[in-house]
Amino acid sequence: MDMVNSPNATKPGAFATLGPRVVSSLIGFSIVVACVWFGWRTMLPMLMFVMVLGLREYRSMLRNRGLEVGGRISAYGYGIFLLISSVPGLPEPLPGVSWREAVMVAYGLHLLVSEVARPGERPLERIVYGIFGMFYVPFLLSFAMSLRYLPNPREGFWYLIITVVGAYASDVGAYAIGGAFGKRKLAPEISPAKTVEGAIGGLALSFVMVFSMSEIVKRSFPPGVNVYDALVFSLLVSSAAQLGDLAESVIKRSLGAKDSGSFLPGHGGMLDRMDSVLFVLPVAFYFLRLAVFS
Amino acid sequence: MDMVNSPNATKPGAFATLGPRVVSSLIGFSIVVACVWFGWRTMLPMLMFVMVLGLREYRSMLRNRGLEVGGRISAYGYGIFLLISSVPGLPEPLPGVSWREAVMVAYGLHLLVSEVARPGERPLERIVYGIFGMFYVPFLLSFAMSLRYLPNPREGFWYLIITVVGAYASDVGAYAIGGAFGKRKLAPEISPAKTVEGAIGGLALSFVMVFSMSEIVKRSFPPGVNVYDALVFSLLVSSAAQLGDLAESVIKRSLGAKDSGSFLPGHGGMLDRMDSVLFVLPVAFYFLRLAVFS
Repeated sequence: MDMVNSPNATKPGAFATLGPRVVSSLIGFSIVVACVWFGWRTMLPMLMFVMVLGLREYRSMLRNRGLEVGGRISAYGYGIFLLISSVPGLPEPLPGVSWREAVMVAYGLHLLVSEVARPGERPLERIVYGIFGMFYVPFLLSFAMSLRYLPNPREGFWYLIITVVGAYASDVGAYAIGGAFGKRKLAPEISPAKTVEGAIGGLALSFVMVFSMSEIVKRSFPPGVNVYDALVFSLLVSSAAQLGDLAESVIKRSLGAKDSGSFLPGHGGMLDRMDSVLFVLPVAFYFLRLAVFS
Repeated sequence: MDMVNSPNATKPGAFATLGPRVVSSLIGFSIVVACVWFGWRTMLPMLMFVMVLGLREYRSMLRNRGLEVGGRISAYGYGIFLLISSVPGLPEPLPGVSWREAVMVAYGLHLLVSEVARPGERPLERIVYGIFGMFYVPFLLSFAMSLRYLPNPREGFWYLIITVVGAYASDVGAYAIGGAFGKRKLAPEISPAKTVEGAIGGLALSFVMVFSMSEIVKRSFPPGVNVYDALVFSLLVSSAAQLGDLAESVIKRSLGAKDSGSFLPGHGGMLDRMDSVLFVLPVAFYFLRLAVFS
């Protein structure tokens, strides 16, 4: 309500698309929660869908700048392999070695063989941007799977959901508070619309959501987390979310794109939706592993 | 001897540097074997040394093209962390998840924060080439550590040594046979000196070395490998070695460098020495894990 009644509500474009945004966000979030709930069998198709759309937008931005990175089918294929290789319970290569890493190496070799088989201009750029695409979309995204099962399937569900909610709360908080009170530019060269006030708003709403969700979850999984844990975790999640947002801004600005695509009404592209969650997933996973389940 | 008496021996530059090359190769190889023998405590400093020199050459080639990728200290620091995180026996994050992956993510975030803190031209290029450098040098190299301990410290020593010897035998075979009989160009756009005959020579010498070494090792570790196993393994190692060689040629040509540096007399730079082994290490590791220790 505050958002709608804020002084900027009548500014054209600021909240004009709020209706369809909220509706499609709620539908999308419900689908994600359902897929996460049932474990890797339903998460895998969902992640594949999201990954293919995200990678497609990345590749299409590159293509608009004249850089055709490897074959489309091979990119999606390796991306799908990468997601499959992150399903927990697979026999591991060696303790502390992952199959994801094997897919990254294989994709590097694949890009190289493509350059030998069909030589073209700017071979190194194709390899370098190809590896980065595999890192940025499927690799980062695949940590959703690892987080879902940390430390076990029952609790992992909640850790993943709280993390994702914390990341999106950070987005919403930054958008609302930045729109209403934003004065000081955060990173004008990268993303001119972002403000310091928005960043603080993101941190604040992220904390509120993480803390209240963990209070609810506490009833099923005592002892749960205290307010300081929730503060540290939401600081981390919100920072990674805002950096992820900036990362996508760097990609879009450098490649001269405005939105990454137009997957959803009022949402821009799929990458625009994923950006803030991509870095959050591995960061939350390794933080929880080191600080909580060590 | 054949190499010295080959018809090309008098061609200026072809074998002129053979003397110092052989001597420094033998010294280098002895040091590597000793470091590998004593396990991760001696391997780690050796890998750090090699990694810092290799990454330094990569960064300096980029700098010559006007691209300063992140800070030097941070690059070496993350590279060192990446090598440390591949030491076997560390408590793993989750079965099938590696600490190496955490370092890659952290470096991605670090590069991003650098762009926010000190904005400059071409931010995406710095991030993309930065991630690739971390992938190409420390990440690929760190699989030496994994291979050293597959399936156990005693046998792993031999698997790593046979792999490295197979890779360098491929180099020497390609150089000698290519120099003597090379006619058909292998990949003229990428590396004009390489020939199909050289590639076959590389495969052949790689097989000879892998097979004879595994025959010797068989006495300590029966049943050992048969001739077909040795053939398949050397095919794989030699192919990955030659692709690794081409990968470095792509990097050098694209960045307009001739040698990657001048670390050793007659050897060009450290990257020129490492190139053929970089992709071989993870390829051999995952192949042995899947085909032999599954």
